[in-house]
Parts: sequence; C-alpha cells; structure tokens
Amino acid sequence: MSDTVVVGLDVGGTSTRAAALTLAGRRLGTGCAGGGNPTSHGAERAAAELLAALRQALADVDPARVRAGTIGLAGAARLLADPAGRDTFDRAWREAGLRCPYTVHGDALVAYASGTASPDGTVLIAGTGAIAAQVRDLRLDRVADGHGWLLGDAGSGFWLGREAVRRLLADLDRGRTPGQLTAAVLAELLGSAEVADRPRDTVDTVIQAVTRRPPVELARLAPLVVAAAQAGEPVAAGLIAEAAAHLAESVTRIRPVDADSPIVLGGGLLTGDTPLAAGVRGEIGRRWPAAPLRSAGDGAAAAAWLAARDLPEVTDPGHLHARLVSPTT
Amino acid sequence: MSDTVVVGLDVGGTSTRAAALTLAGRRLGTGCAGGGNPTSHGAERAAAELLAALRQALADVDPARVRAGTIGLAGAARLLADPAGRDTFDRAWREAGLRCPYTVHGDALVAYASGTASPDGTVLIAGTGAIAAQVRDLRLDRVADGHGWLLGDAGSGFWLGREAVRRLLADLDRGRTPGQLTAAVLAELLGSAEVADRPRDTVDTVIQAVTRRPPVELARLAPLVVAAAQAGEPVAAGLIAEAAAHLAESVTRIRPVDADSPIVLGGGLLTGDTPLAAGVRGEIGRRWPAAPLRSAGDGAAAAAWLAARDLPEVTDPGHLHARLVSPTT
Repeated sequence: MSDTVVVGLDVGGTSTRAAALTLAGRRLGTGCAGGGNPTSHGAERAAAELLAALRQALADVDPARVRAGTIGLAGAARLLADPAGRDTFDRAWREAGLRCPYTVHGDALVAYASGTASPDGTVLIAGTGAIAAQVRDLRLDRVADGHGWLLGDAGSGFWLGREAVRRLLADLDRGRTPGQLTAAVLAELLGSAEVADRPRDTVDTVIQAVTRRPPVELARLAPLVVAAAQAGEPVAAGLIAEAAAHLAESVTRIRPVDADSPIVLGGGLLTGDTPLAAGVRGEIGRRWPAAPLRSAGDGAAAAAWLAARDLPEVTDPGHLHARLVSPTT
Repeated sequence: MSDTVVVGLDVGGTSTRAAALTLAGRRLGTGCAGGGNPTSHGAERAAAELLAALRQALADVDPARVRAGTIGLAGAARLLADPAGRDTFDRAWREAGLRCPYTVHGDALVAYASGTASPDGTVLIAGTGAIAAQVRDLRLDRVADGHGWLLGDAGSGFWLGREAVRRLLADLDRGRTPGQLTAAVLAELLGSAEVADRPRDTVDTVIQAVTRRPPVELARLAPLVVAAAQAGEPVAAGLIAEAAAHLAESVTRIRPVDADSPIVLGGGLLTGDTPLAAGVRGEIGRRWPAAPLRSAGDGAAAAAWLAARDLPEVTDPGHLHARLVSPTT
C-alpha cells in the first residue's frame, strides 16, 4: 500500500502547487508554477502551469506508479462544463506521463480538505476575493458570496483595499492630514504621502491612479491595512473588524445556527496569525462556540488526499488525512 | 434693461438644456438636446449638443442682443484646462451667432444657484453619482465625494442599484425566496423573478447579467428601490435610509457644523418628493436645524442668472434671481 502514489494539484490565481505522495505519507516530490485560474487566465495557460508543476513533482517518480489524482481550482464547475477546456487539461495530464484518472474540485473544497478530514463542515476563504461554502460529504453544497468585486467579495482583500482608499478620500475631502493608514495608502498609490495645496487635486490624482488599473488590483493595498492594524492603527483596526463581520455574515448565510462541524479558514488573509483571522475567529466563536476552528494547510496535499480516499486500499480516510495532509514524517 | 438678453446652459449626462431670458425674466426661448458631459462624451459631442440646444433657445432671438452667457457642466475644470476642448466650445458659441463672452461653471454650482440666490451655502446632488460641495461667493469651494462608482458615489443611484443586487444575491445565498424588492430586481435583470432549482445557478446568471454591462448602469435599478420604498417595502426602506446617511455624511465633510446657510438638494433622486429626499431632509434637519433646505430647479435659468449678475445694469442679484430662476410670469 505504501508504494501507491497519488498526486494533488492546487491551482490558484497566483500560483499552482503540486504534490506527489505515497499513501504512507512520504512526499516524493513537489512542484510550483505560476497562477493558473482558467476563468481569468484561460484553460491553455492554466493547463501549461499545471503541467509545469506536475513535471517538477514527478521528477523523481515513475508516473506509472501514480494511481489517482485530483486538481483543485477556482471555476472548476465552469471548466467541467466546457469540453474544450477539459480536453486541454486531459492533454496536460497525459503529457506529464500520467495514465490514471483524475478528478476536478473547486479550490474551496480543497482548502476545506486541507484543514480537516471531516466530510461535513464549513470553509471560509478570504484572499483577493471572499467566499464561504458549506461542505456535505466532501462536496461543496451551498455557497455564499464569491460574487466578485463589483457585487460582493465582502471582507476580502479587494474590499479592504477599496475601503482604505475611501478612507483616504474622506480625509482629503475633510481637509484632514491623512492618518497613519491613509498616508501609507497615498504613498503606495502616488509614491509620496504629500497632499497638494488644493486637496481636491490629490483626490483626482488618487482616483486616476486607481482607475488606471483593473479594479481587482485594489487588493494589493490590503497588506497595508493588515500591517497598520497589527500596529494598532485605529482606522485599520476598524476596517479589519468590519471585514471580519462581513465574512462571518457570509458564513451565516449557509451554515445552520446549531452546527458543530468544523470551520476551516483559508486564503491569504485568514491563514496564519493575522488580525483578520483573529477577528473572524472572534465573530465565529460567538456564533458557533462549539465549532472546531481550523486553518487551511497544504492544498496540494489535500487534493492528493481527496484523490486517494476512494482507492480500494484506503480503509480509514481520517488516518490517511493525518499522514498526507498533516504529515508527521 | 429689460431688453438685455442672457443665455444659460445646463449640460448634463443625459440632457442639455438652454434658456434665453431677458433681465425682466421674460423667457424668450428654451432648448433641449442630448447628453453632453465632455468627460464621458468628449468635447466635440458635448459642443454639438450645446449648439443644438442653443439654436433652439435662440430661434426667435437676435443673437446680437445676448449680452452674457454661462455654461454649467460636469467636468468644467477639466474642460477649462484643455485648450482644444475650450476651442471646440468657442466655435459652437460663435456658430450659434453669439458674440458675447461666456463663463463655464461646474454643474454642481449651477444646481446650487437653481435653488438659492445666496452666495454661500451647500449643494448636495444624488443622481447616477453623488457629490456635495460647499459654495463660497458663488464658487465651488470644497467638494466631497463625486469620486465615481468604484471608490465613492455613496448613496447615489449606482449605490442603490448595487446594494439592491447585493441584497438579492444574499437572499439567493440563503436559499430564501426573494422579497418584494429583490424579486423586482431579479425580474428586471433576467426578465423573470423565478429562481433556478439550484439557486447558485441564478446567482451566476445575475452576476453575468450585471457584469455584461458597464458597472454604472446598475443605477438603472435605483427607481425600483425608490418605488419599493414608497410602497413601504422594508429592505428598500432600509437601503434608502442607508443612502440618506451616506449623503449626509458627505455633507459633514465640507459644511461647518454651525453653518446656517441654505442647503440645495439636486439630482434626480433628491428633487421632488422622493423617499431619499425625505430621508436626507431628516438627516440634515437633525444636524443643521436652522439651515433653509431648497430643491434644485431650472438649471438653464440658473446658469443665465449666473451670467447676468455681473452685468453693470444688475444692481440687485437677489431680485434678479427671483425673476429669472423662480419666475412669476
């Protein structure tokens, strides 16, 4: 059984990660390539990044040993509904030398599985965007938000960046000297935190600097909010608290009030010891005090686990999760 | 003196209006043409609409009798800073047969002057966008918001439309049957208020329907919110209250707390007896109980008044305002 190899892929907007593991939990190879979200980058580009990551992970592995694989990616449902896109992925899979079948899951399910082996629970992800999903029997059941920057993604990196710029513009409207956070935002956008003699000129320049780029790039200001909140800056702390409330509200849309299943927090803004993660833990702890709260971990390993658990030799998926996703060796 | 003629133009995003008036307040002609905001439509198109409206207003007037003119338009500062755009307007002015000089003012100042003759006060406008401005000596002094849909326009028609869609998406996320407002929004966007068996499919279709068009077109949903609020629908009433609070907050950015100068409410959402106007009157009445609250009126006549008040024969601009902008004949 320990000779059986599985591969997992976590295809995200900024990076693609691959892992090849034995069922005993030995990591035979890992790979990393560029972002490959097929919705934003196209299936061809996504498949090329996938292949690059796969080849790295399989550099020291005979592909014939691989018995199962899972690809986790954003927009999975759209890819599966598109025969041409599916073909592109099939080709990349074969080009990597793989002959076993593979399954495709949404990135939210993979993030969930990277935090828990429980078949039922909730996942909340906040990165550039934000989405919450209820998982039932390791399938995405109901979904909240993930509506994109124009209509949703409340509490996401985009949201934090946009709100930070709005606070800056409000300071300028009021003729106030920008505070610690808003000055940092001004400096990031214009290269200097200096305000023109007519603050309205700075307002116009800020708006032009933002609207010159795609709106979603406002998310690159989120780290400024996180850093300022960590330093105790009150405007930033207020934004983080608002974002946490938005994210928790998304969870209330889909998670029963009496649920005690685990909740997995994922995405760059919620994994690790961030102020937003702390805020979300507080909001969620108030609503579901009995729910175990987990952080999303290694998505590629979680994808490999999702692939492996249906193999006939796997009798205890929970133990397998402990070996593959939370490895002790 | 009553033989002296002045012309005024109010160039807006959806229509351009012109008026030719004698200083006695006699209306010699009016004109109406398409939208001519030079920022969104370009100076050529704006000047063409301006000329069309001018020619109508001057159909029965000898242009040589016109002694002064004012053009009010959005993005006035940008036009004045652009010699080519200014030339385009100069040509249209001469093509209409006019030999007198003209001045250009922001549409916010013209809206203000359509509601009061007071040289100092505040104007708050909510239509597709939202802006507030402090007026000093009949010049725009400080401005709040007007930052555009991505970063501002809080409480505007765009804002109401976007929030209405967000409430609809929240209903669908929760698996709730849409309420009165959100069902109307769904029907407007998709042609039917029916929800798919998988509500997430309806979510995706709604998002696609919105993102297919320019974001600013979300403003066309605002009348649904206004109508539902008028019928007492609670979600719509809540959005109107939120919008009113946002608009009042913009005013606080620029208007001194102890001011007792007039406040003029303009734009499609605030002129007339709308729920948002009532909400804003409430918010503003709490903050500035002594301030006279006025509705914006005839912008073209107000522009004509702004042109006339500097003529040597005008000794009492307040009386002139009563004759031109609030005509009794």
